[in-house]
Amino acid sequence: MAENAQQNDNVVVIGLGRFGGQVAASLLDLGYEVLGIDTDERIVQDWSDRLTHVVEVDATDEDALRQIGVHEFPRAVVGIGTNLETSVLTVLTLTELGVPEIWAKATSVKHGKILRSVGAHHVVFPETDMGERVAHLITGRMLDYIEFDDGFAIAKVRAPRGAAGRTLQDLGLRSKWGVTVVGTKRPGEDFHYATPQTVVPEGCVLIVAGDTAKVEAYAAAN
Amino acid sequence: MAENAQQNDNVVVIGLGRFGGQVAASLLDLGYEVLGIDTDERIVQDWSDRLTHVVEVDATDEDALRQIGVHEFPRAVVGIGTNLETSVLTVLTLTELGVPEIWAKATSVKHGKILRSVGAHHVVFPETDMGERVAHLITGRMLDYIEFDDGFAIAKVRAPRGAAGRTLQDLGLRSKWGVTVVGTKRPGEDFHYATPQTVVPEGCVLIVAGDTAKVEAYAAAN
Amino acid sequence: MAENAQQNDNVVVIGLGRFGGQVAASLLDLGYEVLGIDTDERIVQDWSDRLTHVVEVDATDEDALRQIGVHEFPRAVVGIGTNLETSVLTVLTLTELGVPEIWAKATSVKHGKILRSVGAHHVVFPETDMGERVAHLITGRMLDYIEFDDGFAIAKVRAPRGAAGRTLQDLGLRSKWGVTVVGTKRPGEDFHYATPQTVVPEGCVLIVAGDTAKVEAYAAAN
Amino acid sequence: MAENAQQNDNVVVIGLGRFGGQVAASLLDLGYEVLGIDTDERIVQDWSDRLTHVVEVDATDEDALRQIGVHEFPRAVVGIGTNLETSVLTVLTLTELGVPEIWAKATSVKHGKILRSVGAHHVVFPETDMGERVAHLITGRMLDYIEFDDGFAIAKVRAPRGAAGRTLQDLGLRSKWGVTVVGTKRPGEDFHYATPQTVVPEGCVLIVAGDTAKVEAYAAAN
Amino acid sequence: MAENAQQNDNVVVIGLGRFGGQVAASLLDLGYEVLGIDTDERIVQDWSDRLTHVVEVDATDEDALRQIGVHEFPRAVVGIGTNLETSVLTVLTLTELGVPEIWAKATSVKHGKILRSVGAHHVVFPETDMGERVAHLITGRMLDYIEFDDGFAIAKVRAPRGAAGRTLQDLGLRSKWGVTVVGTKRPGEDFHYATPQTVVPEGCVLIVAGDTAKVEAYAAAN
Amino acid sequence: MAENAQQNDNVVVIGLGRFGGQVAASLLDLGYEVLGIDTDERIVQDWSDRLTHVVEVDATDEDALRQIGVHEFPRAVVGIGTNLETSVLTVLTLTELGVPEIWAKATSVKHGKILRSVGAHHVVFPETDMGERVAHLITGRMLDYIEFDDGFAIAKVRAPRGAAGRTLQDLGLRSKWGVTVVGTKRPGEDFHYATPQTVVPEGCVLIVAGDTAKVEAYAAAN
Amino acid sequence: MAENAQQNDNVVVIGLGRFGGQVAASLLDLGYEVLGIDTDERIVQDWSDRLTHVVEVDATDEDALRQIGVHEFPRAVVGIGTNLETSVLTVLTLTELGVPEIWAKATSVKHGKILRSVGAHHVVFPETDMGERVAHLITGRMLDYIEFDDGFAIAKVRAPRGAAGRTLQDLGLRSKWGVTVVGTKRPGEDFHYATPQTVVPEGCVLIVAGDTAKVEAYAAAN
Amino acid sequence: MAENAQQNDNVVVIGLGRFGGQVAASLLDLGYEVLGIDTDERIVQDWSDRLTHVVEVDATDEDALRQIGVHEFPRAVVGIGTNLETSVLTVLTLTELGVPEIWAKATSVKHGKILRSVGAHHVVFPETDMGERVAHLITGRMLDYIEFDDGFAIAKVRAPRGAAGRTLQDLGLRSKWGVTVVGTKRPGEDFHYATPQTVVPEGCVLIVAGDTAKVEAYAAAN
Repeated sequence: MAENAQQNDNVVVIGLGRFGGQVAASLLDLGYEVLGIDTDERIVQDWSDRLTHVVEVDATDEDALRQIGVHEFPRAVVGIGTNLETSVLTVLTLTELGVPEIWAKATSVKHGKILRSVGAHHVVFPETDMGERVAHLITGRMLDYIEFDDGFAIAKVRAPRGAAGRTLQDLGLRSKWGVTVVGTKRPGEDFHYATPQTVVPEGCVLIVAGDTAKVEAYAAAN
Repeated sequence: MAENAQQNDNVVVIGLGRFGGQVAASLLDLGYEVLGIDTDERIVQDWSDRLTHVVEVDATDEDALRQIGVHEFPRAVVGIGTNLETSVLTVLTLTELGVPEIWAKATSVKHGKILRSVGAHHVVFPETDMGERVAHLITGRMLDYIEFDDGFAIAKVRAPRGAAGRTLQDLGLRSKWGVTVVGTKRPGEDFHYATPQTVVPEGCVLIVAGDTAKVEAYAAAN
Repeated sequence: MAENAQQNDNVVVIGLGRFGGQVAASLLDLGYEVLGIDTDERIVQDWSDRLTHVVEVDATDEDALRQIGVHEFPRAVVGIGTNLETSVLTVLTLTELGVPEIWAKATSVKHGKILRSVGAHHVVFPETDMGERVAHLITGRMLDYIEFDDGFAIAKVRAPRGAAGRTLQDLGLRSKWGVTVVGTKRPGEDFHYATPQTVVPEGCVLIVAGDTAKVEAYAAAN
Repeated sequence: MAENAQQNDNVVVIGLGRFGGQVAASLLDLGYEVLGIDTDERIVQDWSDRLTHVVEVDATDEDALRQIGVHEFPRAVVGIGTNLETSVLTVLTLTELGVPEIWAKATSVKHGKILRSVGAHHVVFPETDMGERVAHLITGRMLDYIEFDDGFAIAKVRAPRGAAGRTLQDLGLRSKWGVTVVGTKRPGEDFHYATPQTVVPEGCVLIVAGDTAKVEAYAAAN
Repeated sequence: MAENAQQNDNVVVIGLGRFGGQVAASLLDLGYEVLGIDTDERIVQDWSDRLTHVVEVDATDEDALRQIGVHEFPRAVVGIGTNLETSVLTVLTLTELGVPEIWAKATSVKHGKILRSVGAHHVVFPETDMGERVAHLITGRMLDYIEFDDGFAIAKVRAPRGAAGRTLQDLGLRSKWGVTVVGTKRPGEDFHYATPQTVVPEGCVLIVAGDTAKVEAYAAAN
Repeated sequence: MAENAQQNDNVVVIGLGRFGGQVAASLLDLGYEVLGIDTDERIVQDWSDRLTHVVEVDATDEDALRQIGVHEFPRAVVGIGTNLETSVLTVLTLTELGVPEIWAKATSVKHGKILRSVGAHHVVFPETDMGERVAHLITGRMLDYIEFDDGFAIAKVRAPRGAAGRTLQDLGLRSKWGVTVVGTKRPGEDFHYATPQTVVPEGCVLIVAGDTAKVEAYAAAN
Repeated sequence: MAENAQQNDNVVVIGLGRFGGQVAASLLDLGYEVLGIDTDERIVQDWSDRLTHVVEVDATDEDALRQIGVHEFPRAVVGIGTNLETSVLTVLTLTELGVPEIWAKATSVKHGKILRSVGAHHVVFPETDMGERVAHLITGRMLDYIEFDDGFAIAKVRAPRGAAGRTLQDLGLRSKWGVTVVGTKRPGEDFHYATPQTVVPEGCVLIVAGDTAKVEAYAAAN
Repeated sequence: MAENAQQNDNVVVIGLGRFGGQVAASLLDLGYEVLGIDTDERIVQDWSDRLTHVVEVDATDEDALRQIGVHEFPRAVVGIGTNLETSVLTVLTLTELGVPEIWAKATSVKHGKILRSVGAHHVVFPETDMGERVAHLITGRMLDYIEFDDGFAIAKVRAPRGAAGRTLQDLGLRSKWGVTVVGTKRPGEDFHYATPQTVVPEGCVLIVAGDTAKVEAYAAAN
């Protein structure tokens, strides 16, 4: 059972470029065991010190993957993105191996559709997502911004002028804008949970949450 | 002055690939005017219906950029990422044109450093950021996750077992884990602002915020 | 309605290489109207005399296909085979356009699976099929051979020695080998329907049908 | 003599791609011994488990072929198709080695003529053949179709409406259409030899044979 | 008839590189009309001043050749040499057009065989021929050398020492070496026909003819 | 001294392609020792059985050539032709090594000039020479033709009609055409030295010599 | 005559890259007329505003050069450097056109030799020259350095410690080191001609001239 | 300390092409120790005899450079010039290693700016510098010319006509032209320091120094 639990912490990451490499690195930080796979000998060598297992193998070769036990992993991440053919064939191979949870990176909407067609459970679009995020930040209205899947966004915005010293209730952002201040933060300090009674400190930023459109509207006006 | 205000809504986006294209599309949605620039005739044509101005021009050619007025824009986004040389030369050209705020996409840490050296004010790493996010999601512990710049994270997690029907105060996540529940959300419904008295509904997810490490720790244990 | 019927005779053929070109040519012979699509200007020009409509268009561009009315065709054949990415993207585009019947050529088993995943209703493998057929012919046991989908084969074989002048009933191929002689044929003459009473002419070939294994066994022994 | 007989079962297959690979695989199934030749190290390795002999050799090098005994084989199949020069030089080399029966795959009519000029006894055109077959099937009139060399075709067609329960004689297909029903088949069941007295079962398909044009005409009308 | 005679002076030269270009230039000098064909726009333009007709056309395209009347030429020279495939396809196309006399350049023995297989009547090997000629000259034994098809060679050699002032009969080269002196030549002067009575002038060279081996033997010894 | 003499029979051949390979082969036949040099490993291996010494070396590297003793050879042939830069650098290197006699192949007039500029003593143009020869032969007027350096040509021509049975003197070719018949030859038989009294045999060819223009004029008229 | 004089100020610069471009620019500054030649359309366009004449032409094409009058220029600079073949052919073409003074850039010693062989009167080596200069500067011993052709160098060096306020005669650099101080210079001020009586100012640099070795020795010791 | 001094004589040269190679060679001549770095195996081998240490390493790999001790060198020269990306990344890596003095070669003004942005202390432009120098020499007005950084130039010019036998004072170049004659030189002889009393020898050249514009003006007029 302990072994089983440990097995649940195993992830195979195929393609150790910028994206896959960061997935692997972050998973290591989170205490997971990562099996890295890449076709580039140099990348494999670079990672050999950091990952328990890293293999130079063609991930579209079902037999090769089976030989190193990929079919026993509960989760796989396909970081191959620039070559649609290899990306799709790799996901298909993982599907045929019966990997229960397959994540894959796509570079276009169509690429994403094909990945889902051949069995990817989750498809991510780094370029598109970052593009949207930068669009929100570039205006200077927000200091950071993230939109969750279902129309719900959280943004880091500067406190409105004249807010310092007043309570959130007094500011009335929820009634006026339909957004909720979930916390306040001053540079270098910890996040503070916000209640209606929270007094906005000088020079702080607010973490506001709410419907995407409302968060945008609030940020645009302040 | 109105014109000046309008001018503040102008952004030039150089390189209309996945990232730059999404920046342009999102900015349009936010009501901005976008000047698109690309060297690929076909991409320029594809965007000609959607953007007010889209030009096929070599963005490392200072004279050419000046001729189309790029030096009068308050902000520029450089979406060129795969070719380091062009990316760096473009940022340098914008710096020499005196564009006050330059955003640029990097594909590696070194690329990012060079971009900052030649004048980029903000450098983003789509692949790396998405890699980190996927690492958090793949474990199944979180449904979504975002880390803001300064060690502060927000995650969407499933409510712990047995939580339904209890108040957040009763659950005591803040005291036990140091995280704050800023809202609850049920699929298909709106976000609900959470107070200590909020009763956790059946099948809902919690939006928790807090120190990155604590959010991770909470998610790992629940 | 007449127009509707006529519409049923329309086929769009994408990729006018060896395979797609032959599909188009044969369909013309059968009285169908064919819309040919290729990205190669020269091929398009070559076909412009023979097809009513032939267009130089990127078949992965949904808008472009819609503009030339591809979404109204009841059937499409995708002859693109060498480039898996284009082949898959084209089939996906046709699926999204809602074309009711999509045929596609594959160059490998995995390619075939992906094509089916993204919506192809029929996938053919020219190289593999011809490979199997040649294997049967090269032995000299059969003069021609075809295997239908479900284990049923038809072969053209030389009449066994000593068969000339005897009736098929007398030869007893069905009882001995489990195969049925469905006809006889002499070079330059028409096919003759075979009954048990048919007398095998000198120098003729027999068309035998039956279970694949039995047809092979018969041919191997005679 | 036994050895001689065995030798007759030997085939050398040059080029183990889709076509040549399938020739080799089918020949193995039929009980032949196959000598596989390819210049791609990886393909040679992939086949090394399945073929008795598989060699990495340049098939345009007469000495090399002689060294591995190719000149003693009664039959050779040249599966090289994409590179006309290599394909033609290989056939020429086999001709000079005196191989009695040479089969080769062509990708165009001219390619086929050159192959015959330099000594190929049989030339096949997988793409063209499959193209013709698909053209017949795509209309939905036939379920399968094959044309033998001399204007004689066999097709699998759905029984005409109202045919179930009637005898073939009664249907009179031969008199009306000039085609002969050589058998009936229901999905999942064996082929049944057809006589004029055969009663057409519910939901069956007919195997009809006859002159190509007549088979097509019948299928088009039913 | 005059026209017919004139037609006999027409030659089509396909491929106007070094070899084909020289064929064309020499034929012009000899008073022939030359139709030049090349696929390189620049070469076609270069020759447009010198040839009556020069066309930019793909010489493997039978229709294109027919349109410019190539099938009516009594002779064609194929100067394409570096690309075997184009060279062979061009010769095949000329064969199918029925050109009565086809010359072609080959770069290897096998290339030559294929050219002959597809219909070339004369195949020449510039590199090989010049190689043989240089081998004879480099030794310094001969000043020039040519071997005609059937073992008969002619060479220009220095007169043997002590020959000046003596008659050829006296020198007795025919009896000693089996070679015939067909003429003498002094630099800057005309060739002189040689008889046994010819007195060898000071500093002249001899033109000797005879069996290849004997010419070589004589040159090696003198 | 014997060694010295033997040394005079040594030739280094650089570039063992069609031309250089034929030079080497012919020199071997003539009894010379050849040092072969090529940068292509495979070519070097192919020649290792036939040449006493064959080395894989970059012939533009003076030190490398010196190490294998190239500077001690009395003659070198540079068969590199397609790459002007390598060809020129190789000749320059040989010049600097002080090789007394350097032959080189050129592909154009300018190439030839550069080769002479950097020290080549003899430059040959295989493509051009063969082009000129073919131009003479293609007309059918001559059966073979060679032009020596100084406007003196020898050709093999069919005997004029009605010549059989007459003496050469009677035919009067010298007085009429200014050409000299140096011999007669019948297919399969030896060359016969011709005198004015020689009777022209049935079906023979004449070897005629003389001024280039006169030989051409004679051939054109007969 | 005036025209003739003006003609003496004409220079043709072939290849307008970094080197050739700077030659052209500096010549313009010096009041010369420059005819620029390049094969790159974009470069030609870039220079069209600055040069009186700039032409897109292949400089190895003698006729083309003659047509634009290159043969009448008294001087030509060949700035083509990366492609040895084009560089050499261009110089050869200029030689054949009879241009009286040809300068050319070389990238290696051998390249330089070939250029001289085909007629270049002056050959320069930018990379090599700058390499030597940097080697002298990198040590920090000299602030600038130039070596003239014949072992005579001039360097800019810091005045030795303790020199300020003393006369050059007193410092005795000529007697001690064999170098001559030809001037002194303080940052931002003009050069001052130096005599033995010159008093070295505070913080100045000395311009010293002399034998290369002696200048180096002096700089190394101070 | 001695070791420390010696260390000051160490220079690392990255990229051993024409420029870097000459830097290395000149430094060796000047008595420095040079660590050579290149990615080209062949270049590394060529230099292995001449340099104490030469390593095949990717100079953008910080760890690799650190391992061979590059961070302890007081000076580095980056000779990589054709590939802007590698050039910039290498300089950045040296900057991060803390190398106190970094020299780099640039191929354009922008390239130079980027190099300075990422930390290069000195940037040189060989092509541009030589271009300027050649422009001065080509006119024939000067025999050699060098411009130091701050508008101060030194030139070697022919003595004006009629100068031989007169003193420099008498010639009055300083008063007329504002240039100073710092020495005289006759071919094959040593440089002679010039004083106002120096008598100009027959056929000598003058070394004149002064303001760039004045030196040019003087040379143009004489």
